Amino acid sequence: MKHDEMGIVSAPERRLVKQLRASNTRFSAADSTLAVSGKNQKLTDDWESKKLDLVAGGRLLQDGLVYRQNISVRSFEIGGDRKMSFGALLNHLQDTALNQGIITGLLVDGFGSTREMSRNNLIWVVSTLHVVVVRYPTWTEVVEVDTWMYASGKNGLGRDWIFRDSKTGETLANATSVYVMMNRETRKLSKFSKEMRDELEPYFMDCECPIINKDGRKILKLDVTAADQRCTGLSPGWKDMDINQHVSNVKYIDWILESVPHSLMERYDLNVMTLEYKKECDMDSVLQSLSKRVSEGNTDSFSASEVVEFDHLLRLENGREILRGRTVWKLRDTNNCVNSYVY
Amino acid sequence: MKHDEMGIVSAPERRLVKQLRASNTRFSAADSTLAVSGKNQKLTDDWESKKLDLVAGGRLLQDGLVYRQNISVRSFEIGGDRKMSFGALLNHLQDTALNQGIITGLLVDGFGSTREMSRNNLIWVVSTLHVVVVRYPTWTEVVEVDTWMYASGKNGLGRDWIFRDSKTGETLANATSVYVMMNRETRKLSKFSKEMRDELEPYFMDCECPIINKDGRKILKLDVTAADQRCTGLSPGWKDMDINQHVSNVKYIDWILESVPHSLMERYDLNVMTLEYKKECDMDSVLQSLSKRVSEGNTDSFSASEVVEFDHLLRLENGREILRGRTVWKLRDTNNCVNSYVY
Repeated sequence: MKHDEMGIVSAPERRLVKQLRASNTRFSAADSTLAVSGKNQKLTDDWESKKLDLVAGGRLLQDGLVYRQNISVRSFEIGGDRKMSFGALLNHLQDTALNQGIITGLLVDGFGSTREMSRNNLIWVVSTLHVVVVRYPTWTEVVEVDTWMYASGKNGLGRDWIFRDSKTGETLANATSVYVMMNRETRKLSKFSKEMRDELEPYFMDCECPIINKDGRKILKLDVTAADQRCTGLSPGWKDMDINQHVSNVKYIDWILESVPHSLMERYDLNVMTLEYKKECDMDSVLQSLSKRVSEGNTDSFSASEVVEFDHLLRLENGREILRGRTVWKLRDTNNCVNSYVY
Repeated sequence: MKHDEMGIVSAPERRLVKQLRASNTRFSAADSTLAVSGKNQKLTDDWESKKLDLVAGGRLLQDGLVYRQNISVRSFEIGGDRKMSFGALLNHLQDTALNQGIITGLLVDGFGSTREMSRNNLIWVVSTLHVVVVRYPTWTEVVEVDTWMYASGKNGLGRDWIFRDSKTGETLANATSVYVMMNRETRKLSKFSKEMRDELEPYFMDCECPIINKDGRKILKLDVTAADQRCTGLSPGWKDMDINQHVSNVKYIDWILESVPHSLMERYDLNVMTLEYKKECDMDSVLQSLSKRVSEGNTDSFSASEVVEFDHLLRLENGREILRGRTVWKLRDTNNCVNSYVY
């Protein structure tokens, strides 16, 4: 354990940091940043200046363990119905998580890795993601996002989000995700070392408390012969890769949605998405996206259903499983359409 | 002319509005919004509340004719090099233009049309777009965007943008675009009526002053047989349509970039893009993207060139021209890479 470099080692010290953060939560984001970063003086000057650049307006709450940021729904984030797209919502999951890492100083290499992870050539990868959307916000609406971290088992990082209407406090969406560590070179998963756990722990909420109760039903591997929708020959483009050389999460979701009938999307909103990532794929991968309606009824006829449910499978053409998922779709309430302009 | 509904009719009245706007530019965006919207009391309450929702932080300058907004480069807007993507930059062209429309009250139907246009079932379509990028901003950098409008010929709306480093004032990018009006039903172009001109004129800068001097060389139609790069079978997805039932501008640019060799993109930055939109396409269109290197040298070997230039053509499979374009690429200055982290 390198005390001088870590800055934080013992439980009493961690408590002290939490107290310090708590005393800062009444200040603005910039103030908090300065105060919190005082605990991490070894951070590079470059990152210090970057933190001050953050005009996202984020700030720390609840002993510094919850990051809150307002986001305004932009014109380029909406679909034809003027509502924020599911993909845009996912973008903000990633973005607010990273912003918390910047503002607290936990993130040192610029894309989510801590100091100790960086030293060991480790990056975060998403293991599971579960999103429940109650109502999609519309263009120009302001959404308040809260996010926080906690330990998930021995080798996982849990992270939750709440999206709220900033005016009314109404919950718009909840999300919960588990990340694990992967070696950047070998692409193998890694256990948390003691040093990594000590580094992360001061930033964890004390309970293992995913905001979304896991759907008890295990997602079974979709029987390929039973799929009633399939897209083949899917391949990531150069612009779908993130800086960790992953295919970006949003691209996976694009592929899943490509295999959902358009006739469904025209009248139903995506309400729940549960994903289990099995293996990464790269620029040269060629994939198939398979879907099967699991709720009762015919895949091409949704007229009688309030709720429609699909199982999904993304796999390589050689059959290797990349991701399995489940989506739940709810009949759109046209009376509840905030932007019902005639156009 | 419906005086009571227009609110603004004569030249003296227009001058008055400009003076009123000028007196508001020292206030915050919210203050300006309230004051300016006082001139347009017939706007729906819904839009009034939406204007106040804008946390974009935009404000009006220079007699209220220039809209300025800071944007922070988000994690989901960057590519593998941690710099803002060209597509993300284009998103902010559209977004700041619309925000100006909201804050001034000129925009009434929610996606760019004025009151008079809306009454005549007209929408804006892009005719030409010219973008010059000097330096791509990096993740978390704050960019100050200025945009303004002016008359472009008898039936065009000119709009310019400057993107600056908010700290140094360094110009990052300039863009200039011409929009024309199209009937939403017939999809035919329309002339400006006197009423539409009167409605727009108070918001125009007084000179016809595109910030980018037009490249004198006309973009000739690419000789299809001479193309040295082509992608075929391109088709928009449901998520590529905007609320005016256009294929979104960014999608066109994706298609153009798909036909540029990846070996070029790895070492060159897109420096200039000039586009002339010829015809729209819809969900059922199947397109080809053709490119031809017009600067000297072999398409697959760029090693000796500081600058590489391409002509582009997007066309329907039946040969009908959708868009012609030109791109200029500059050898990346790796020493000038702000975020040269090892990862």
